[in-house]
This record gives sequence, C-alpha cells and structure tokens, in this order.
Amino acid sequence: MEFQPILDDIAAQIQPLLGSAGQVASYIPALARVSPLQFGMALRTCGGQEASAGDSNTPFSIQSMSKVFSLTLAMRSLGDTLWERIGREPSGSPFNSLVQLETERGIPRNPFINAGAIAVADRLLSLGDAKADMRALLSSLCGEPVTMDPEVAQSEADTGFRNAALANFMKGFGTLDNDIDRVLDVYFNQCAIRMSCLQVARAAGYLCRDGVHPYDGTQVVTEAQTRRVNALMLTCGTYDAAGEFAFRIGLPCKSGVGGGIVAVVPDTLSLCVWSPALDKTGNSHLGRLALELFVSKTGLSVF
Amino acid sequence: MEFQPILDDIAAQIQPLLGSAGQVASYIPALARVSPLQFGMALRTCGGQEASAGDSNTPFSIQSMSKVFSLTLAMRSLGDTLWERIGREPSGSPFNSLVQLETERGIPRNPFINAGAIAVADRLLSLGDAKADMRALLSSLCGEPVTMDPEVAQSEADTGFRNAALANFMKGFGTLDNDIDRVLDVYFNQCAIRMSCLQVARAAGYLCRDGVHPYDGTQVVTEAQTRRVNALMLTCGTYDAAGEFAFRIGLPCKSGVGGGIVAVVPDTLSLCVWSPALDKTGNSHLGRLALELFVSKTGLSVF
Amino acid sequence: MEFQPILDDIAAQIQPLLGSAGQVASYIPALARVSPLQFGMALRTCGGQEASAGDSNTPFSIQSMSKVFSLTLAMRSLGDTLWERIGREPSGSPFNSLVQLETERGIPRNPFINAGAIAVADRLLSLGDAKADMRALLSSLCGEPVTMDPEVAQSEADTGFRNAALANFMKGFGTLDNDIDRVLDVYFNQCAIRMSCLQVARAAGYLCRDGVHPYDGTQVVTEAQTRRVNALMLTCGTYDAAGEFAFRIGLPCKSGVGGGIVAVVPDTLSLCVWSPALDKTGNSHLGRLALELFVSKTGLSVF
Amino acid sequence: MEFQPILDDIAAQIQPLLGSAGQVASYIPALARVSPLQFGMALRTCGGQEASAGDSNTPFSIQSMSKVFSLTLAMRSLGDTLWERIGREPSGSPFNSLVQLETERGIPRNPFINAGAIAVADRLLSLGDAKADMRALLSSLCGEPVTMDPEVAQSEADTGFRNAALANFMKGFGTLDNDIDRVLDVYFNQCAIRMSCLQVARAAGYLCRDGVHPYDGTQVVTEAQTRRVNALMLTCGTYDAAGEFAFRIGLPCKSGVGGGIVAVVPDTLSLCVWSPALDKTGNSHLGRLALELFVSKTGLSVF
Repeated sequence: MEFQPILDDIAAQIQPLLGSAGQVASYIPALARVSPLQFGMALRTCGGQEASAGDSNTPFSIQSMSKVFSLTLAMRSLGDTLWERIGREPSGSPFNSLVQLETERGIPRNPFINAGAIAVADRLLSLGDAKADMRALLSSLCGEPVTMDPEVAQSEADTGFRNAALANFMKGFGTLDNDIDRVLDVYFNQCAIRMSCLQVARAAGYLCRDGVHPYDGTQVVTEAQTRRVNALMLTCGTYDAAGEFAFRIGLPCKSGVGGGIVAVVPDTLSLCVWSPALDKTGNSHLGRLALELFVSKTGLSVF
Repeated sequence: MEFQPILDDIAAQIQPLLGSAGQVASYIPALARVSPLQFGMALRTCGGQEASAGDSNTPFSIQSMSKVFSLTLAMRSLGDTLWERIGREPSGSPFNSLVQLETERGIPRNPFINAGAIAVADRLLSLGDAKADMRALLSSLCGEPVTMDPEVAQSEADTGFRNAALANFMKGFGTLDNDIDRVLDVYFNQCAIRMSCLQVARAAGYLCRDGVHPYDGTQVVTEAQTRRVNALMLTCGTYDAAGEFAFRIGLPCKSGVGGGIVAVVPDTLSLCVWSPALDKTGNSHLGRLALELFVSKTGLSVF
Repeated sequence: MEFQPILDDIAAQIQPLLGSAGQVASYIPALARVSPLQFGMALRTCGGQEASAGDSNTPFSIQSMSKVFSLTLAMRSLGDTLWERIGREPSGSPFNSLVQLETERGIPRNPFINAGAIAVADRLLSLGDAKADMRALLSSLCGEPVTMDPEVAQSEADTGFRNAALANFMKGFGTLDNDIDRVLDVYFNQCAIRMSCLQVARAAGYLCRDGVHPYDGTQVVTEAQTRRVNALMLTCGTYDAAGEFAFRIGLPCKSGVGGGIVAVVPDTLSLCVWSPALDKTGNSHLGRLALELFVSKTGLSVF
Repeated sequence: MEFQPILDDIAAQIQPLLGSAGQVASYIPALARVSPLQFGMALRTCGGQEASAGDSNTPFSIQSMSKVFSLTLAMRSLGDTLWERIGREPSGSPFNSLVQLETERGIPRNPFINAGAIAVADRLLSLGDAKADMRALLSSLCGEPVTMDPEVAQSEADTGFRNAALANFMKGFGTLDNDIDRVLDVYFNQCAIRMSCLQVARAAGYLCRDGVHPYDGTQVVTEAQTRRVNALMLTCGTYDAAGEFAFRIGLPCKSGVGGGIVAVVPDTLSLCVWSPALDKTGNSHLGRLALELFVSKTGLSVF
C-alpha cells in the first residue's frame, strides 16, 4: 500500500479543524503554552517504508506514551515476576483514581494507569539507572538521541500531588521498594521526554515486528511479550476511552496528555499522530480523528 | 492450515485434565448437575472448512454467549441509537455489579455485563417478538433449529434476584421502557438456549466474515458493526478476565457460565470451546486452556 | 417550662418563610400536590403537658418516620436477633444507595436507610400481619385510630423501582425470607400512613419515657432498647444530614419525605414538626429550622 | 453520685480480663511494645470531684484523641470558616480511606477521620505555631505540662505512607495551604503527645461545662461550639464503630490507637479510660467494655 498519499489526505482533512475543539493540557505551564494549531503524523512499515505529514518532525512531550517503553524495559528484565505487583485488567476508572488501589489493596490494575506506571518505575529503579536506561532504550529504538525537558519534569514534580498520593498509598501497601521521591523522579522524567511523531513511529517498530528491534534486528522483548504489550495497549492504552478506541479504531494505541498517540498494526506498521488539544477523556481530539480516518482509508484494524 | 489435527491434539492434551480443577456453575439445579468431565471444540473457517473434537455435538446452555447475538440483533435494527442507553467501555467490576450502575446513573457500561444485556433485551422487546427473533437468528446462523431449555429459563427466573435488582434499578433511571418481568423473561430465555460447539462455531461465522451470513451470504450486520462486536468481545467479553484473555489469547471471545466460549479470528475462522467447570473468574477453566493452546499452536491472534 | 408560648413564637418566625425555599417531594402525585405553605408543630412532655402551633392537626404522609415504629415492633419481638441481618452504623451514603449493600454483601447498614427498613418489614412479615400490627401499634400509641392513604401506597408501588432493586438485591444475598412483593407491600403501606403532628408527638412518647407507653403505662420496649432507638435516630435518622442535625440540633430525630420530623428529648418530651418543602438532603427545610429555633430557645439538647 | 466506688468496681471487673482479647497497635515499634496488661480510668465532675482506678497516672500515647483538641483550637480561631474545607458527617468508611476523599473531591467527611485531622492541622499551621499551640492548650487544660514522645512522632513519619497519601491527595484538590511535610509533622506530633487518664479526664473538662475551662473559668470555645464538638464525637469519634458506641454507650467519645478513649457526660463529667489492646474496629477492647459498665452502673447516657 502507498501510505504517503493517505497521510497527505488525512492531513488535508485535519488542517481546517485545527483549533476547533478540545483543550491543551493546562496543569503545567510548559504544556499549557503549546499551540493547539499543530498536527503531525508519521508511520514506518515492517519493510522500512516511511510516510509522514504535517508537523511530524516537531518534538513534543511524550508523557504517558512513555509507559509503553518503561513497561517494555521492565518486562524484558523481569519476565512474569513483574505481574506480582501489577495487574493486567482494564480499570473502568479514571487514570489517576485511588479508589481501585484501595479496593485491590495497593496493586494497580494495569501498567498504563498512573499507579501502574509508577510501580513499573519502582521496578526499573531496583534494576539499575532507570532514567538513563529509558533514554538509552528510546534513543536506540528511534535511531537518534532523545532529549528530556527538565522544565516539564520539574513542573510535574511541583504539581504532582495526585501521583505522590498514589505512590505513598502503594508504598503503604508494600507495592513499592524504593524511596518515593526517587520513584517519582523516574516517573516524571520519563513523562518529560520529547520526541517527534517520526521518532515515536520508528521507536514503536518492535511492536509490529514480534519484538524485533526496528534497526539492529535484536529481540527487544520476546514475541509473546510483544503480543502482551499490544493487548494491554488495546484494552488499557487510552484511559477511560479504551473501549471506544477499540470500537472505532481497533488498533493497540497508547496516548499521552502531550497530545500524542502511538498505534500499532501488528505485522504491518507502527505509527504516531500528534495534536495537542485533548478531548474530555484526555486523548488528542484530532489525533483520534486522524486514526479513525487512517483505519477507514486503509482497512487496517485487528478486527 | 489443517485444523483437524490441531484440534485432536488439543483434545488429547485436555482429556487427562478433565475434573482436575474448577467448578460447575451451581446457582441453578439444571447447570449444577452437568458433568464437568466433558470437553468439546469446533471451528469453521471463512472458506467453509470445519474441524471438531471431543463433545462437539453435545448441546449445552449458551448462557452469556447469547449476549453476542442479542447485541447483533439490536445493532442491526437500531444502529447507533442503541448506544444512547448502553456504554461501550470495559467495566472493571464484576459482571453483576450494581455499583457502576449507580455511579453512572443507570447506564450500563457495556452490553456484555448483565445490566447491559438486560438493557439490550428491553430494546429488542420494543422492536418485536424478542424471544422468537433471537431463536430465529440463531437457527438461521447455524443452519438448523436451536432449542431452549424451559427448566433453565424457569430456574433463572426463580433465582434471578440480582438480575431483577439490576432491571429495577435501571427502570428507576429510565433506561428500560418495557415491563420488568417481560424484559427479564426475554433475558432468561436467551440464556437458556442450548447449542453445541459446532452450532456456535457456525453461528458466529458472520463475525469473521465482516458481517456476512455464514450460509446465505446476506449481510447480518455491516462491516463496521462487525468490527465493533469483535472489539467489544475482546475488551469486555470474559467478565473481569478480559485483560487476561487479551493478554494470553488475543482474540475476541465471549464466555458463558454454561462453560462455553466463542472466539473469532477475523477474516479467518470462528470457533467454540466448551467444558463446564469454571475458574474463579466465571470462565471455563479448560476452555480457556484450550484456547491458549490453539493460539499457541496456530499463531492466530490479533496481536 | 411553658412550651406553648415558645411554639407560638417559633410558628410566628416560620410563617413569613413559608414557600421561600425547598421543594415538595414530587416522585408521586399524591405528595407532589401537597401545598408547601403549611407548617405545624406539636409536643407532649413526659408529664402529659401538650403544646401545638400551626397546622398541628392536619394529617400528612409519615413516610420514613414510620421506620422508627416498625423498628420498635421488630425489636420488641426479636430482641438482638434482629441485628443479625441489619447493621447499626451510619451509612455515609444516600438513603437509597445500593453501593453499600454490595460492599457489605446484602446487610443494610442501619434500619433507617430504605434497605434496612425493607429488611425490618421482612422480619415483621415473618412475625405476623405486619400491616395490621403497624397500624395497631401507632393507633395505640397516639390514642386514636390512624389511617393509611391507599393512593400513596399504590403510587409508591408503581414507581418504587429503586426499592424493588434493593429488595431483590437483598433477597439474592439471603437477607429477606419472604416474597419480595409482599415485603414491599408492607413497606409501602407503612410509608403511606397519615398522622398529624400532634398524633406523632404523642405516639413517640415512649421514646422520652424509657420505653413506657404514653397512655397505658405498659413497657413498649425495654429501657435499653429505647436508648438504642434514640441513638439510631441521632446517628442515622435524617439521611445524609445526620451529622449536621446532631451538630445543629443535637436531638434524636427521624424525618420523612412527607415533610415531617419527629424528635425526642430523653426524659423530657417528644415532638413533631411538619412542613412539606424539603431541602436538598430530603429533610423538611422549615421543619429543620423550627427544630433549631426550639433547641436554641429551650436549651434542650443532649449535648 | 459517689464515683470512686463505681470506678473501683469496674476496675475489679476488668482486671481478670486483661490480656484476654484484642491486640496492641503494631504499626510502629513504640506502640507495639506497650504491655496490653494495663488498664486505667479517671473522671472529673463539673463540680471538681475526681475519681480514678488502675493505671490512671500512667502516660500513654493519646494518638487520635488529640483530634478533639486540635479541632477545638481550630474552631476557636476560625469559627464557621473551618467548615469550608471539612465536612461534619459520619463517613461510613474506614478512618484512613481515600475513596470518600475522591468522591467528594478532596473535602474530608469530618475532622475525626485522618484526612480531616490533617486538614485541621493545615489550618492550625496557617494560624501560628501549631505544635506549640497544641501543647500549650493541653498543658493549660490539664493543669500541668504535657510531653511528646519524639520516637513515636518519628516512627509515625517513617511509616505514615497512608497519611502522606491523604495529604498529597488533598493538596492536589486545594484543601491544604501549607507544605505537606510541615502539615504531617504537626499531625504526627499531636498524635505522639503522652498523657495519663487523669490528665485527659481533666483536659476534657470544658466539654462537659459548655466550653468553660476546667480550671481558670475562661471560655475555651463557645457553648454552641462545645455542643458541636460533642455531637461530632458521638457521631464520628470512634471510627467505624460510632453507631455501635452510640447504641451501647450513648456518650460523645473519641478513641485513639494508643488504647485511650475520652468520653463526655454533658453538664456532668468528663472521663478517660485506657487499655492498649484494640478490637478489630481499632478501639480499646477493654476501654469500651469499661465505658459500657460505667453507663450501666450510673445510668448516665445522653439517650
């Protein structure tokens, strides 16, 4: 399939809608001042074909999209023992809810809600230099060094009371081994990594290749683990809209409040869309629409 | 692919495990007296190839697997207006929970939890003779008449206090239009339909054919609607183990407390496994294992 | 203390406020058409002194105030075994919530939330002719026959889906022994009893007399049981405003959506206020104000 | 009434039961090593009469009993504005639950659950030197300097993840103005104050005297505020057993996990019991029994 014309087409349909709906995340200044009038999209096929449109080279804050990669790091080193402290079920609750944690005695429902990602960060800290490991993985996967925005990380730390509540709560239940401030530092750092659509699309390449590194051919995670990451993305990757995404888009996706969404078509391609204005479920409003258009135009969907 | 040897192989692996774990549903006598020492499996490909093993011709109570077909009926007639009264998100709560209904003011989270299926039954009642329509649909889809076990339907009615609570609760919020007793009668009747693995595998054929009837070539539901049913099965089809099923099996599945599980490999085949003993999540213990073996042996998974 | 001038004073202060705030209960026609421009108040001391003001002889629907008397009947016959199926703690949830029932496996938190009163009605049915027993008790306590409004009872039955949900839910957990329709019939009948402020004030006389009947001197319930009813009224008697009532009024109180509130000053007097417009917590807006004035003018409070 | 023989009598009845049931709080070493074989009781009447029995002069960690006094300090300075950030209703949830906080958007249900007491500590910090003010108040009220156990305060801080979670959570909702570490320091310090039964009984004297200081005759809080503290103690003072305490004891009470319970008989006396072994609701097992005996022997109860 020729993807470049399809992406051009989608970009042309999205362009007139920029600024028409949704709101940029406003809980920290560095995100609040991002212009909503931006849209980018990029993909890379298993065969190495690339296509991109719009602001596909503009770096943005990957935020919760980082959870896919931190989970990958943890699964690679820990295997199934990771799941002793983290569940794998959809939550049915907002991403930063404490209710579920209380009911289930400190075990987060899955690695993509905030509590789960914080628990993953704790595991990575026990394994080594979590911050360096994350950036090394991402740099390797996308083929060039990625950077982190220290202002974003600091702002997240300054305002992250809800995440600190989650971390303290889990610590009280014994879910976390490391010092809370260090765990949160890892978590806030991974959220503050900046990448472009094209970089993310490349980096996610192992997810459509049964775990094989997009460039160096090594096995990033096993084939079974790759299927599991994809399954988690489909069922839990887009906050409380996972059912709606599965229903309308039908691809494993993971979104972030920076406005990015990474998606996987198994055995075919990985892609990333970005537009900063969010809908009320916290997912990129136009990113979501772009993905719907992509699925509709290509017929690519797991269902 | 040659499926018959694969199914034979799976049946041979399952056989020695019969009776080793899990419990037959015991809330009504007609289910409680079913022997747990049974296992069947059947599939039918898009090309019409069939394979089966074990007790694949023994009829059993389809129970919640019926929710796939009642949803299909309702989507066909109502289109998107169906979703005004029923959500499409995973619930994160047990299948018969009232908590979610209270929080979300009488709108069930999805059509596969009991509350959602009862709301679907109410919609079908407003459209016509819901009980006859359900059996007509299933008989047409599997190519021969299906029967309903009146003892099961009566037992469900006699003991269905939780379902009556759900129905009354939704009625109080205005989610149901029809008389509660009639709605529950429809619901208990559909649960009491008896089919064999082979019949279910045939009947689900439209789900791997983009909505096309497995025998007569008509469009049962649209291609988009078919994707949506599959997406709902994957995210919400196996009670509170949907994440685990997505993770380990990676196929749209819908289970019932009769011990059956129907699964779909889009564009490839539909299949059904049955073994009456349930695990603690209410899914067939050996049915689940058989599906894992199937995916592992065939590599068929949406991820 | 001379109470008549105090009540006259309160009535004079309340009169100009009639119609200024709150809303008459509107879920059934018979309550919705009651004029909000009514206010009555009556009391009877342990010594037999009576005082009244405003519409103190107008009968109104006692609704949830009946829960005090059905509890009394059940405690008298069952003693502590009553508490095997009903809790005694404040609920922290709305009066008709199902969430608590689910968390605590079908045991209602206290006898004054709807679920608890329905469970009490079930106990009374097992003991005899619950409807006749309730009216006999009330008639005896207030010294003249009380009547029941069949239109109200019927309307409650026709619209009582939430209560039917509660009853079915408890039946599913084994909390109720009797047929649900009969239990609800008892419950809806007791809610539909009509009494005037003066009748209620008289009937509650045993609660300020350590359990002694206000007229015939017999022991209605034991002294210990009387203290317990009063304690439950103080902690659970006014829906989700019990803390606020304890805080501002400091007397055992039980309210009903008919606009009545019965209150007890232990060892001193029993009283009843009535004004149909309710505040957003479901308690009589002006009845509450009248009680605050009464406590402020008399200094009578348990604290 | 002669209270000394009554207390002697109660102590004699309790003595053989020491060590028979309940468990000393074990979450910090300084509490875990307290011998459960201790029991003390002391009271002081409005007239200044004192009575005591058992280990009534042994200092113990007052823990949550301190919440009565921190609330008093905050009410005195802030009046009704205090209630803009703290509710006054029973919680129906465990004392350290986060669920309620999430549902009610960061406003704790009452000042006696942990979240509420932390919010009170925040208010006191905004008013001045909260730690010094608390100890000054308590020293003045009981007529001699009280001490604080720095080991307990430090242990609470080291293990107080749940309280840190509550504080962070409220901070995220804007309920707290001050730095979380400083707020928790105030809270952990007040919990670590050590007093004897006799000191507590004296210090609570203003609660049975309409707010008048037990020694110097000044007004600690207004009469109305005093009634309110008593009402809160009765409805919310003993964790999730408040209904049971109201029901069996019928007095405003506040317990702590150090094993103390302070109780008030309005216009009559204040008293304190202490025995370190706790029942499963977190209240002193034998302290509770001693209070039941006291009420039964004296007939003193607000109901």
